[in-house]
Amino acid sequence: MTVSFDYTNVLSFMKNSELENLSGFVKQAHNQIHQQTGPGSDFLGWVDWPVTYDTEEFTRVKIAAKRIQQQSDVLVVIGIGGSYLGSKAAIEALSHTFHNQIKGNTEVYFAGQNISSTYIEHLLYVLEGKDVSINVISKSGTTTEPALAFRILREYMEQKYGKEEARSRIYVTTDQNEGALRNLAYEEGYESFVIPDNLGGRYSVLTPVGLLPIAVAGLDIDKMMAGAKAAYIKYDDPVLATNESYQYAAVRNIFYNKGKSIELLVNYEPGLHYVAEWWKQLFGESESKDEKGLFPASVNFTTDLHSMGQYIQEGRRLFIETVLQIKKPQIERTIQDDIDNIDGLNFLSGKTMDEVNKKAALGTALAHIDGGVPNLLIELDELNEFTFGEMIYFFEKACAISGTLLGVNPFDQPGVEAYKQNMFALLGKSGFEVEKQSLESRLDKIK
Amino acid sequence: MTVSFDYTNVLSFMKNSELENLSGFVKQAHNQIHQQTGPGSDFLGWVDWPVTYDTEEFTRVKIAAKRIQQQSDVLVVIGIGGSYLGSKAAIEALSHTFHNQIKGNTEVYFAGQNISSTYIEHLLYVLEGKDVSINVISKSGTTTEPALAFRILREYMEQKYGKEEARSRIYVTTDQNEGALRNLAYEEGYESFVIPDNLGGRYSVLTPVGLLPIAVAGLDIDKMMAGAKAAYIKYDDPVLATNESYQYAAVRNIFYNKGKSIELLVNYEPGLHYVAEWWKQLFGESESKDEKGLFPASVNFTTDLHSMGQYIQEGRRLFIETVLQIKKPQIERTIQDDIDNIDGLNFLSGKTMDEVNKKAALGTALAHIDGGVPNLLIELDELNEFTFGEMIYFFEKACAISGTLLGVNPFDQPGVEAYKQNMFALLGKSGFEVEKQSLESRLDKIK
Repeated sequence: MTVSFDYTNVLSFMKNSELENLSGFVKQAHNQIHQQTGPGSDFLGWVDWPVTYDTEEFTRVKIAAKRIQQQSDVLVVIGIGGSYLGSKAAIEALSHTFHNQIKGNTEVYFAGQNISSTYIEHLLYVLEGKDVSINVISKSGTTTEPALAFRILREYMEQKYGKEEARSRIYVTTDQNEGALRNLAYEEGYESFVIPDNLGGRYSVLTPVGLLPIAVAGLDIDKMMAGAKAAYIKYDDPVLATNESYQYAAVRNIFYNKGKSIELLVNYEPGLHYVAEWWKQLFGESESKDEKGLFPASVNFTTDLHSMGQYIQEGRRLFIETVLQIKKPQIERTIQDDIDNIDGLNFLSGKTMDEVNKKAALGTALAHIDGGVPNLLIELDELNEFTFGEMIYFFEKACAISGTLLGVNPFDQPGVEAYKQNMFALLGKSGFEVEKQSLESRLDKIK
Repeated sequence: MTVSFDYTNVLSFMKNSELENLSGFVKQAHNQIHQQTGPGSDFLGWVDWPVTYDTEEFTRVKIAAKRIQQQSDVLVVIGIGGSYLGSKAAIEALSHTFHNQIKGNTEVYFAGQNISSTYIEHLLYVLEGKDVSINVISKSGTTTEPALAFRILREYMEQKYGKEEARSRIYVTTDQNEGALRNLAYEEGYESFVIPDNLGGRYSVLTPVGLLPIAVAGLDIDKMMAGAKAAYIKYDDPVLATNESYQYAAVRNIFYNKGKSIELLVNYEPGLHYVAEWWKQLFGESESKDEKGLFPASVNFTTDLHSMGQYIQEGRRLFIETVLQIKKPQIERTIQDDIDNIDGLNFLSGKTMDEVNKKAALGTALAHIDGGVPNLLIELDELNEFTFGEMIYFFEKACAISGTLLGVNPFDQPGVEAYKQNMFALLGKSGFEVEKQSLESRLDKIK
């Protein structure tokens, strides 16, 4: 097993019987998901995805990635939410920390994940003098942020290369049949990939949505899918006592019911920061409906032990923490002896840095337990494409079970529309005249 | 006024009289801070800092920054917590988004803010072929993370340049009189700067701790101190009705007492991400004692509206949100018309991107208010060195008042020691033998 879950450290806060009491419900949730009988069952395409994905398209993704690496210095990925966080997480976790500054790498930048004019202007400045390809990712093609960025970057590409060459440098990932971006891809002859209908954005990292940018960054997506498949097999097991993904879901549920309101995802490798961001979308969007759900937050240790550490140790007892630990670091380093020992660190001489990092993790877990914070552990043997794919599926399955146990539809996100409706109305989009009037009179009253 | 606070949007969740009821306590807190009679009064050096800082040393910081810019391609800043987050926040907010990739800039990297061997190896790889200066920042010189990084980087520098030249490339920011790093600076003749005794790390961004890296990045620290001074004058006012920094503190206190447990700091400019990280340390370390305090979290919008947006709109009603808004963006851009209008965005033609960003913010605020989230607004006219300095002081003062109202010592951080003690014991540091034995027998029992 290369991804494992350990809840030993919460047994001073809960009884084993609490877990056993949930085993029937977990089996029920498993059946609802596998038999597609629960809420949101139209969006269960991710369950079998590691064995049902379109291998022809997968090959086309790899070929396109090679072509992009050959034709360009830079790939700009345009997307937001699930069309952004999965590939960002993989590239940050698995590539060089300073990937875009390493000679020989195809640089990967993201756009359309915000509405900052400063950001897009700075990005355009960095693109100067470089050959560029674009991968625009949007189911509808009309989501404001990526559509706006694509409008700007498409014009940029057509001015830079002419309409014809720009066509060969723009790659579209969108709905199979309909929508603005699908139509444009047909019209312009852009190479295109499919966002499946039956899985949501936050479950899309192992589809072309995530895989094309990940492959362009030089990562091995075959291994990633192999890892996902291993996890698919491993976690296709309705028995709580043996399914660690479900154990994670059940323990979260137990502590939620005990009154905890926040789950902190903890890492000790800076490269995992965006894995936590991806995780926050996965759990945050899936569970938080009808005023329910653990609030997902994240910290990067030991960095944030020197900022958020005080709160976690001695502030309100709001949380559980889940440590995402990498057993074997990507690169190791031994600490040298220093004759003068002015810094007093010679007690570490001959040890590896990672050993220190691990003792910091262990010491922190013990301190937090003493401070009343239940501590869960998810361990990856190493951090590589295989374990990344496995981890993604581990979390996806756990999230589905966890949301189902909570009694919500884990696969919709109705609350995401609210700000968009208001924004369209305030911007005077046609069809929103009534809302515009209502919002503006409300704003007049405030003033 | 270039930084302003507006609580209009929470008046459907609280009465104005609730604020008025606190005015006496706020005045009391103000007096405790200004007369140094409250808890933690040894650490109030930051209060008058904008008018009492050592101008000679300040000039030396500017000269050193120029020298570093001339002698090196890269500055590596070694520090953690308050010795990291302040300068990181300023540089990310005020410099080019891709600062380290822009020709002519002195690149700035950080080290010693984690214990990742992968990170430090990747950093060393990026330094290859470049001229390097180091600024190591640590009060004691023995904090594990920065001490470890400095041990590695000092050896790297001495191998690269020889002992003599390395000396002229290493800059130390540490205690005035004592500690490992102060002693080393004397011995080696490193140029050194002072971390004042009477202010904590999270209050140190406007001291040499933050200012040297900020100046090396090409930012104007004179303007930053001028902004801080303007705020110092503006917020030296015990009257709640006219002091907006205190109003922010009081409103936080009111919602904490109403049962809110999380404050979300929201931004709409990606450059502000690390301002939020700095803010999290400031409030998290200051308030969270004795199982009290709002949990400080942050989101970057509109990015995170597509990940955390669902939770904020429809999850548990745990929070207030405070929007940090920049009125005038650093760079503006007008949205062009598109003849085909395939993306349906022509209703935005002729508008600026920032107008869209602002309507997104307004639409989000209204949606969140409808969803039961009280919405506070801190506005900066522009984002520049002056307003940054002002904002820092606004938050510092607010935090001191807020923590005082909460009945804690806002200026200590006893909980940060817990993990360190355990880590030292587990690593076999001498003097921790008893703790080591106790922890190990505890770990044996778990297994």
